[in-house]
Amino acid sequence: MDDSIEAKREFRLKMNDLILNKGDINIKRFFALDSRVYKDGHLSQKTKELLGLVASTVLRCNDCIFYHLDQCYKQGITDDELFEALSIALIVGGSITIPHLRFATNQWVTLTSE
Amino acid sequence: MDDSIEAKREFRLKMNDLILNKGDINIKRFFALDSRVYKDGHLSQKTKELLGLVASTVLRCNDCIFYHLDQCYKQGITDDELFEALSIALIVGGSITIPHLRFATNQWVTLTSE
Amino acid sequence: MDDSIEAKREFRLKMNDLILNKGDINIKRFFALDSRVYKDGHLSQKTKELLGLVASTVLRCNDCIFYHLDQCYKQGITDDELFEALSIALIVGGSITIPHLRFATNQWVTLTSE
Amino acid sequence: MDDSIEAKREFRLKMNDLILNKGDINIKRFFALDSRVYKDGHLSQKTKELLGLVASTVLRCNDCIFYHLDQCYKQGITDDELFEALSIALIVGGSITIPHLRFATNQWVTLTSE
Amino acid sequence: MDDSIEAKREFRLKMNDLILNKGDINIKRFFALDSRVYKDGHLSQKTKELLGLVASTVLRCNDCIFYHLDQCYKQGITDDELFEALSIALIVGGSITIPHLRFATNQWVTLTSE
Amino acid sequence: MDDSIEAKREFRLKMNDLILNKGDINIKRFFALDSRVYKDGHLSQKTKELLGLVASTVLRCNDCIFYHLDQCYKQGITDDELFEALSIALIVGGSITIPHLRFATNQWVTLTSE
Repeated sequence: MDDSIEAKREFRLKMNDLILNKGDINIKRFFALDSRVYKDGHLSQKTKELLGLVASTVLRCNDCIFYHLDQCYKQGITDDELFEALSIALIVGGSITIPHLRFATNQWVTLTSE
Repeated sequence: MDDSIEAKREFRLKMNDLILNKGDINIKRFFALDSRVYKDGHLSQKTKELLGLVASTVLRCNDCIFYHLDQCYKQGITDDELFEALSIALIVGGSITIPHLRFATNQWVTLTSE
Repeated sequence: MDDSIEAKREFRLKMNDLILNKGDINIKRFFALDSRVYKDGHLSQKTKELLGLVASTVLRCNDCIFYHLDQCYKQGITDDELFEALSIALIVGGSITIPHLRFATNQWVTLTSE
Repeated sequence: MDDSIEAKREFRLKMNDLILNKGDINIKRFFALDSRVYKDGHLSQKTKELLGLVASTVLRCNDCIFYHLDQCYKQGITDDELFEALSIALIVGGSITIPHLRFATNQWVTLTSE
Repeated sequence: MDDSIEAKREFRLKMNDLILNKGDINIKRFFALDSRVYKDGHLSQKTKELLGLVASTVLRCNDCIFYHLDQCYKQGITDDELFEALSIALIVGGSITIPHLRFATNQWVTLTSE
Repeated sequence: MDDSIEAKREFRLKMNDLILNKGDINIKRFFALDSRVYKDGHLSQKTKELLGLVASTVLRCNDCIFYHLDQCYKQGITDDELFEALSIALIVGGSITIPHLRFATNQWVTLTSE
């Protein structure tokens, strides 16, 4: 396991706990909503994770890409599917998203070579 | 057919022609790339249009939503599938995307009630 | 009453109804959350509406500015308070926000001269 | 002269006056700064207007594109120069900027065919 | 004192000095404006810092959040007030702002437990 | 040579190779387009690099600023020209771009003092 990936996962969980502990009821409700929205429904969780990944990439948020890549990996998304989704993010979002493609590729290669 | 939808489609096509006529080779190549990226591949065109729609919604571009809704409709996407995709855009992008959900809903209702 | 302001309010309400009717449970919950978050609490509703207004201005969403200006007006915010809040949005967000200051000023003058 | 272009110019000036009249000293100073920054210096005004245009395009602000296109036209920028600048905005900003290329092309054709 | 917070404060000041030394008159004027706009006026400095914090959060800039949190702390803002302001940023800006809530929470806990 | 600058250059090249190796044909074409668009044409490469730098600054992408600063340096851009370009980015993009001015200034000073 890549240490920095593990460290990011831990910081994420620790801070989420702290936010839920400190935050008001509206923050708690938003967090609950944020986990429910990716569940299987009329669209599969796999498709939803790809939607989350592309949204995160065009909005250029590495921490969000990080989370959705973990989920994409758990959903059994293939290399080809992943890079087709990223190619859409790249065309929609332009070259400004390329640093995030680098980040995503680095993490994906780590995940898939474990 | 709703006139304003038809008018938007016409303006879009007319201006695209003008850009391709005036623009340099790099603009032409980008436009070619932009239409190729949504073709069937390892991911279906249907999934890719949903990716394009969600990307357009979180980036808050009505003209882009307009185009992808047209394509989603042609791909036979259902009401339930569409609104699940939009719910992900809403949670990722926040209340600032709500005006674009209104725009999308208005157009979708027109398209599906023709 | 300015007709276009009234028309915008009506479109907003009509589309919100349609979204709540068509949308899934997650969209409904988000909408509920979106109205609760501006209620009086440890910060006053007046302060919260200014927070919503400045957030909407730096994110450059006229429909959101429109809504929060209506609420600011109801909360009795003065011209001086409003323009101080907008001056922060302008300095944070830069000249790209100026068209939204024009939009906001036009609506505010209409609201306050009724 | 295209009426809608003229109408936009008038709304812009009228609202700027109102903002300067209503706004606080910080808004006034920002507006002064905003006009000074495009003046001839170590970079020519022509280059600076192209910088303003590309910044406005990748930030996707039609009102700002509108203003800088007017200035580009006054600076004698050619079709080829303009579309090369826009091609950079397109590659950097992605397909999400295409509606703004349509807007810019439409206005530019009007300006250059007067 | 948390070292990394102190290190960030130092880098910020050192680079500001360098920018003011290297930059042209327009940059200097902007920096002056940027510090004046948060001063007490018709709105209190406390309210203005919350406006700056929420603007920084929805625009997803950790360095800006960092600065405004320092100021919020100096203004005596409470935990409850802070998280209510952040909950508005979260609802307006969506889940894409969550990594910035984690950043803010981590810094706030450090500041308030010193 | 500053180590961290060299390390960034290496990571950039290594990840680009990996993306081109893993990515589909559309990603490859985009990358080709992205390098062609800054070549000398009706606008000089120098002007184009400034356009790329300002676009990267208002879109607030340090990795993109990093690349364009390297190119600006190779094009012989002077301190005065660079900071005039950055002053436009600052006025257009607002105080939210200041952390990126700090990043750019730090790198520029390193490059020009080698």
